[in-house]
Amino acid sequence: MPKRLSLQPSRDPADYPFSHRLRTRFAETDAMGVIHHGSYLLYLEEARVAYLQHLGHPYGEVRDDGVDMAVLEVSVQYRSPIRFDDEVVVHLWAGSVTRTTFQVAYLLTVEGEPRATAVSVHGGVDRSGRGTRLPAWVGEILTS
Amino acid sequence: MPKRLSLQPSRDPADYPFSHRLRTRFAETDAMGVIHHGSYLLYLEEARVAYLQHLGHPYGEVRDDGVDMAVLEVSVQYRSPIRFDDEVVVHLWAGSVTRTTFQVAYLLTVEGEPRATAVSVHGGVDRSGRGTRLPAWVGEILTS
Amino acid sequence: MPKRLSLQPSRDPADYPFSHRLRTRFAETDAMGVIHHGSYLLYLEEARVAYLQHLGHPYGEVRDDGVDMAVLEVSVQYRSPIRFDDEVVVHLWAGSVTRTTFQVAYLLTVEGEPRATAVSVHGGVDRSGRGTRLPAWVGEILTS
Amino acid sequence: MPKRLSLQPSRDPADYPFSHRLRTRFAETDAMGVIHHGSYLLYLEEARVAYLQHLGHPYGEVRDDGVDMAVLEVSVQYRSPIRFDDEVVVHLWAGSVTRTTFQVAYLLTVEGEPRATAVSVHGGVDRSGRGTRLPAWVGEILTS
Repeated sequence: MPKRLSLQPSRDPADYPFSHRLRTRFAETDAMGVIHHGSYLLYLEEARVAYLQHLGHPYGEVRDDGVDMAVLEVSVQYRSPIRFDDEVVVHLWAGSVTRTTFQVAYLLTVEGEPRATAVSVHGGVDRSGRGTRLPAWVGEILTS
Repeated sequence: MPKRLSLQPSRDPADYPFSHRLRTRFAETDAMGVIHHGSYLLYLEEARVAYLQHLGHPYGEVRDDGVDMAVLEVSVQYRSPIRFDDEVVVHLWAGSVTRTTFQVAYLLTVEGEPRATAVSVHGGVDRSGRGTRLPAWVGEILTS
Repeated sequence: MPKRLSLQPSRDPADYPFSHRLRTRFAETDAMGVIHHGSYLLYLEEARVAYLQHLGHPYGEVRDDGVDMAVLEVSVQYRSPIRFDDEVVVHLWAGSVTRTTFQVAYLLTVEGEPRATAVSVHGGVDRSGRGTRLPAWVGEILTS
Repeated sequence: MPKRLSLQPSRDPADYPFSHRLRTRFAETDAMGVIHHGSYLLYLEEARVAYLQHLGHPYGEVRDDGVDMAVLEVSVQYRSPIRFDDEVVVHLWAGSVTRTTFQVAYLLTVEGEPRATAVSVHGGVDRSGRGTRLPAWVGEILTS
């Protein structure tokens, strides 16, 4: 059973220890002329992967060690539209770490302006798809 | 500013007045061998569009009348994996209607088993991208 | 090395022995207000999967038997736009079967009008990702 | 009617005047454990947009001037798989320019090794969706 989201994503970039820049794709727009709301989940994931790389634990290696970090829950608040070719900065902060789950809070900005906030909950999953303990470094790094 | 999600999605299909069936695509899987968490937002959207059609207000006509129903907030709880070629039933229920917003609660099942729940908040947006009142029928139909 | 596409997709639906209906999604549109060209590959794949099901060889079972039918080459000719909520009929025809590859030709229509044609080449791939012979039924069924 | 692809994409990076780097996303993988064949079209598009930017004609400005560069035809040859977190270099070369169309040839490499080649044909489209002449700079720059 997923645990409830508990992190509160701030709208101040200074509250986040890590950020990742990306440029939106034309394919990610929709007929409203803006980035489709579903594409935001791809931006969050890309930023998480960049954060794991930054921490010295590339997600490919984590998976090779037999643990996936499945998404148990995600919530996005869309504040103002993101457009084609915008440079988006995804600010993120990880916390609420337990032996089996952790959470990530996100702020998406374009030219310094908040466009969306989000929270995701992740849980360790082994190769057979069952819930499992996260690697020890998760607790050590993300709570420090 | 998005309003907070207030609907509670039940895990009993009988609590939902409408359901929509779809079959997952291979393209929607990921390297974990299951449907990628981002694909669920596409299923929710497809079910909303089918519901508007069922209500006699196809989304294409709603948009031709000048109002988009933008997603202001979305939250998904992933309970157990959905796989390639699964037939997913998206049960949904709309409520919390105001002049400018409404919410939708969802239950996704495969072979009768709950796989995910979700809630989305939607707001009327005019052609210039500004918030606007929803068509009158939204309040009349969704609160009845 | 991929072999060259050799099938010629006709624009007459009567030339195709199988067809599959689907409805386009809003998420598949782009800022030009039409279905994004990349989404067409998803429609081709969905139709191939429906065809395998129709032939009594669901793709999930084919994969469980240890053979993937990887895409070696694909070509799409976009003739006129497809729009949100259009009902697309994907007509298809398989041929040019060898021990390790086969081709599929496609015609996409909306209300009977040709919108796109396409050809794909597929090859058997085993679990380690190496090219392998296709199951015997492929040659028996697709050349008959 | 789309014109036939005529460019031949070489497998030697030195034959291409422009290249664009990108990192694959986990969302772009599929249950075969590799990047889904449909995701390649997104990489080609991202590289085209980067090329237009490099040429001093950002695609957003081109569109604001009233001309879309619609995809009339695309063909991809998949040579060996691309994986999650790979850094892909998309090499490209534009040519076969007419008043209303141009073509782009692509080579995708990972660590210097060819993974795929592709060709796309593009045509000018005005706001009403009708074919139109391309901006004059297209012929001047792309044929020089």
